Amino acid sequence: MEGDPALRLRVFDLNCWAIRYLSKRRQERIQLIGDMLRQEDFDLVLLQEVWSELDYSDLNVKLGGCYPFSHYFRSGVIGSGLCVFSRFPILDTLLYQYSLNGYPYMLQHGDWFCGKSVGLVIIKISGIIFNIYVTHLHAEYCREKDAYLPHRLVQAWELAQFIRHTSKAADVVLLGGDLNMHPEDVGIRLLRGWTGLRDAFAEATRFEGCEDGCTLVPNNCFTDKSELLPFPLGIRIDYILYKAISSFMVKCEELKTTTGAAPGMDVPFSDHEAVMATLHVQRQGQAAGATLTTAEPMLADVVTEARTEVGVGLRAAQQQRYSSGRMALLALLLLLLQAMAALGALAGLDAGQPFPKLSFCLLAFLAIGILLLATGLHLFHTMEVKMLHSTEEQMRMVLQTLQERP
Amino acid sequence: MEGDPALRLRVFDLNCWAIRYLSKRRQERIQLIGDMLRQEDFDLVLLQEVWSELDYSDLNVKLGGCYPFSHYFRSGVIGSGLCVFSRFPILDTLLYQYSLNGYPYMLQHGDWFCGKSVGLVIIKISGIIFNIYVTHLHAEYCREKDAYLPHRLVQAWELAQFIRHTSKAADVVLLGGDLNMHPEDVGIRLLRGWTGLRDAFAEATRFEGCEDGCTLVPNNCFTDKSELLPFPLGIRIDYILYKAISSFMVKCEELKTTTGAAPGMDVPFSDHEAVMATLHVQRQGQAAGATLTTAEPMLADVVTEARTEVGVGLRAAQQQRYSSGRMALLALLLLLLQAMAALGALAGLDAGQPFPKLSFCLLAFLAIGILLLATGLHLFHTMEVKMLHSTEEQMRMVLQTLQERP
Repeated sequence: MEGDPALRLRVFDLNCWAIRYLSKRRQERIQLIGDMLRQEDFDLVLLQEVWSELDYSDLNVKLGGCYPFSHYFRSGVIGSGLCVFSRFPILDTLLYQYSLNGYPYMLQHGDWFCGKSVGLVIIKISGIIFNIYVTHLHAEYCREKDAYLPHRLVQAWELAQFIRHTSKAADVVLLGGDLNMHPEDVGIRLLRGWTGLRDAFAEATRFEGCEDGCTLVPNNCFTDKSELLPFPLGIRIDYILYKAISSFMVKCEELKTTTGAAPGMDVPFSDHEAVMATLHVQRQGQAAGATLTTAEPMLADVVTEARTEVGVGLRAAQQQRYSSGRMALLALLLLLLQAMAALGALAGLDAGQPFPKLSFCLLAFLAIGILLLATGLHLFHTMEVKMLHSTEEQMRMVLQTLQERP
Repeated sequence: MEGDPALRLRVFDLNCWAIRYLSKRRQERIQLIGDMLRQEDFDLVLLQEVWSELDYSDLNVKLGGCYPFSHYFRSGVIGSGLCVFSRFPILDTLLYQYSLNGYPYMLQHGDWFCGKSVGLVIIKISGIIFNIYVTHLHAEYCREKDAYLPHRLVQAWELAQFIRHTSKAADVVLLGGDLNMHPEDVGIRLLRGWTGLRDAFAEATRFEGCEDGCTLVPNNCFTDKSELLPFPLGIRIDYILYKAISSFMVKCEELKTTTGAAPGMDVPFSDHEAVMATLHVQRQGQAAGATLTTAEPMLADVVTEARTEVGVGLRAAQQQRYSSGRMALLALLLLLLQAMAALGALAGLDAGQPFPKLSFCLLAFLAIGILLLATGLHLFHTMEVKMLHSTEEQMRMVLQTLQERP
């Protein structure tokens, strides 16, 4: 590759669904992923949902020969689940943890505990600087009534801002990950419009894999068939996006996805399909500049749409902050009343009636429990309001700038 | 200023100590700060500890005429306390919240609730791109036994990494803020060494203000005199740092600090002294490149020193994670024992003894309380371990790179 003016880069992206004790046949699948990656010899491997550092270490040992450079991004209680394996030296790394990521009390969803983030690794191949981003956004549990849409939009916005601010010295920008958004969703349009990133699936000269490039398909034995009922072909939520910034040109020559179980195997690598892109990078005469793919009036529409959704989330968060604050006050009031009753009993004002110690204690503990819980919720929703408000204002500023341009 | 090849930039930095209900004479001081800023006509104002958005709004209304551009950085439960006022248009902003920032149970210190962060605003003056950073790191409550040193070092490291990754297209980088570190502390040496930022106080051609450039001085009526006993002149913890990245040169012509109460006033602006720098920015023939001020072998020593301290913090956090996990398990065991005793009593195995309902309930609630608290602590310290571990590893990687260089 060295000395060749054109560079061919093979990129692999997969959400590995490797949750300890929960994901089916996890260890077997991690072995399979490792074996396949060793055989296939990609240049760059971007993985998500490698929640256990032990799984990462196993992969690292297995892949050390073909991918001598790797990075595991730690964050949150459980981790970010993100890691990168590379054939080329990793020069630098940075992690940005999204400011909103679901709710700690939604234990059944668990996203909050993951510390979802975007990881950046910088590599240099034949003098070309690549900024490689890997990420995993908040899951969508119910498309009809998506309570997490405002949080996912904040994440998409922060992802776009992080990429814009950190990629200014890069020649090529590449983003891989499970974005948990369909291609036409507002979050994807926002991300692409505001960064100028192109969708490898839409740009690919050749495509091979699941129809419409879907990465969550009914054909995969691990997917929940009932969730995919409205989408008989499946959905596309895993992406490889790219752009050239300076005097380079990137083309996607080929895009592939896996299609359920690989030939000769009875188990797919994950409940998601992998996305594999072959990119062609070439130096061109004049600098391309940081062009946006979406025309500015269209971009303004997308930002307006996203801002409206964030505004809906903001009002819901304000309502929850208010409700939890009121609940905390009521619990405090109950405790004060109880304290007065107890003082009254001690002062002999109970008119000889036996004092109901047990019920009194139970009630007091209940009130303390509610007070603590409601205060915690109030603090959490205060923080949520702050971040939604801040994002909404940033979007307002961007809209103003877009509208002021001649 | 337009068309002039040399540019003079007057920068003001102050930790305003504006905590609602707690800081003395807060509103009066915010008024004074606003009046002075309006009179003095700086180019750029970087403020910290403006915790209340109402105070920011008041300042914004007052300063709208002279500083038409401003930004307030929201984060955490209380906020980041950071804001910027500028005479020049703010082109873009970004906030990075530090991954570690003290402990939620240290209510008397409260840093955890503030969501301490670094804010970036980008401005362009006469075609020169300025990346302006404003930040406030974790306070040092006891210098002899500084329990927060590992957290502050993680913050200093993340600050340096954030500046390095986001400033690649900037011509001039400027950082102002309360770093809560003395000039010779390892965190400052790490920040300066790893970013190449220069200390305006050390570089200034002229200086006027508190001796040694101190910004927390016994002369200020709001400072805690007993804390400053070991430092009769005071301490310097507020900084303006800068560097030129591309083909520009920056010099600090003059540095000033306030000295307690201003002439004709009986109250200082804050418990901190303000730092005011006049910078001279000039285009020069050849690109300076991103030079580091600290020679690389020295930088390696600083990173090693910082890594050792982070390692100490890591082991302490691992110990706390273990202790809280054990406590949670013991509480769970107690609850199980109680459940067995209750079942025994229901099955008539209590041999006719009256069942002690009240003590039983109290004990059960105690066990539940301890279980919840210890689980919360365990989760928190798990996250702390992850971030300390991650920083230690990043530092190890940097050391390896530094040592591999010829």
